[in-house]
Amino acid sequence: MAFDRLIENIISKQNPTVAGLDPKLDYVPASIKNACFAEYGKTLEGAAEALLRFNTAIIDQIHDIVPAIKPQAAYYEMYGWQGVRALAQTIAYAKDKGMFVITDGKRNDIGTTMEAYATAHLGTTDVAGEAVDAFGADALTVNGYLGSDGIKPLLNVCKAKDKGIFVLVKTSNPSSGELQDLQLTDGVSVYEQMGRMCESWGAELPGKFGYSGVGAVVGATYPGQLAEMREKAPHTFFLVPGYGAQGGGANDAKNAFDKNGLGAVINSSRGIMCAWKKQGLTEDDFAVAARNEAIRMKEDILSVIGEIKD
Amino acid sequence: MAFDRLIENIISKQNPTVAGLDPKLDYVPASIKNACFAEYGKTLEGAAEALLRFNTAIIDQIHDIVPAIKPQAAYYEMYGWQGVRALAQTIAYAKDKGMFVITDGKRNDIGTTMEAYATAHLGTTDVAGEAVDAFGADALTVNGYLGSDGIKPLLNVCKAKDKGIFVLVKTSNPSSGELQDLQLTDGVSVYEQMGRMCESWGAELPGKFGYSGVGAVVGATYPGQLAEMREKAPHTFFLVPGYGAQGGGANDAKNAFDKNGLGAVINSSRGIMCAWKKQGLTEDDFAVAARNEAIRMKEDILSVIGEIKD
Repeated sequence: MAFDRLIENIISKQNPTVAGLDPKLDYVPASIKNACFAEYGKTLEGAAEALLRFNTAIIDQIHDIVPAIKPQAAYYEMYGWQGVRALAQTIAYAKDKGMFVITDGKRNDIGTTMEAYATAHLGTTDVAGEAVDAFGADALTVNGYLGSDGIKPLLNVCKAKDKGIFVLVKTSNPSSGELQDLQLTDGVSVYEQMGRMCESWGAELPGKFGYSGVGAVVGATYPGQLAEMREKAPHTFFLVPGYGAQGGGANDAKNAFDKNGLGAVINSSRGIMCAWKKQGLTEDDFAVAARNEAIRMKEDILSVIGEIKD
Repeated sequence: MAFDRLIENIISKQNPTVAGLDPKLDYVPASIKNACFAEYGKTLEGAAEALLRFNTAIIDQIHDIVPAIKPQAAYYEMYGWQGVRALAQTIAYAKDKGMFVITDGKRNDIGTTMEAYATAHLGTTDVAGEAVDAFGADALTVNGYLGSDGIKPLLNVCKAKDKGIFVLVKTSNPSSGELQDLQLTDGVSVYEQMGRMCESWGAELPGKFGYSGVGAVVGATYPGQLAEMREKAPHTFFLVPGYGAQGGGANDAKNAFDKNGLGAVINSSRGIMCAWKKQGLTEDDFAVAARNEAIRMKEDILSVIGEIKD
């Protein structure tokens, strides 16, 4: 089961974090951008090549200490199909370096269409008998608003191809409660109901560490709900955004973990990508700074959860 | 306001429908596929070129009688970045022929990331001072599970660039009720709450026909809820899936319209793309068959709603 692979990687590296690769062109050093624009012009192709070089430099620096990356699809789509090509190249590069890849796409649709998304991001596309990985991530974030038949096609692909999904439960943004915190007549909130659905869907994808292949996104910016959901969804592995730039700290993120330090992976995006700004380094040192920050973040979280054991 | 343009197009063509372009490779005639595979091999590139030729042939046949297309992002992503390039090319081709383009991506994320999606699909990407349309659709479908700060960045782009969004309210799939139909403690359902949020967000984007730039997706497969939401969300324009292959008929879709025959656009995807199968034609006649079906569908819907007036 895919999250077994992620958890093994977390234990062996003693690092329950994921590096979010959400590269805006503004984050890329002028030296890289100028080289790419000189080669491809000030075009989407030039921009996409700059993002790819930025990403691979970071992956080179962190792949031995960070178990996973989480590229955010939106930042690649912003640079057109050329940006989406850079996403595919980033995924392939990270997998080749042994990293677990979570594509953050928050995809959702009705059953037949969800099959297409599952094939695109986790499965294998059939081209007249040739089997091709279109994007080939290890896991995908999804939105469960459409209910079971928007999720079931993913479970089939996850089973067949050893992949996982993370369903949005309680998101990290300020207005997440507008819908997610509303109380239903049976006494649970909308986000808790979504957590129940994750536990139910996950029963089809059991894992050897007690966590299923259906994870949940729960933000570090809501530590109370994080603790609540850790208790109420004991088989659901959490992807936790909101650490760092969004305001969550290690003591908030701590609530995502079980007593063995398992059960969650904490994301940092801007904190990793823009780390040079806080370290008195130049922008050309962005990749080394990302490594420094990855080490600092790992130690910060381990200082509150202790050694990670299976 | 973007939906004013769509509504004008609907009135002038007397056709409140949108052609869903969700092309699976299986739908594309062997003659087109073989030509593309001969040129590009059995690759994602060959597959993507086949989808593009299929789409442009349909657009050539229907652009004078159908006001809009709705390409579904999943079916392009399934063919990798090459497929996503075919999506961009399809959007550009349809716009060039005067059609209104709704990209069906059901995108959703927190504020900063939603800005990136808004820029990608509706806005203009800044590449070192050069302004480039990454995908350039007229409207995008989105999922409101994250609340206002996942929607507000879209409203800014919609205002600046004359674009619109459709928010998922009550989807057409069998399990849509698992979350959407649950009752909240204040007596409304989750989907009705989402409809209220659409009315609220839409107040920022008023339109001259009484419909705002924030539309809603409400399925024809739930005609009761469609009638309910038409009444409760009077300023919200509806994108209605579920007609045809999913089981909804003209009498179901009728509930989406106001007394002037305005207020909604009805989608058909497989019904249009695979029309040749029901018309005793060969697969090479798929584009002419799509036109025949577009005319039949328009007449079917007009027969229950009457003339469309402003």
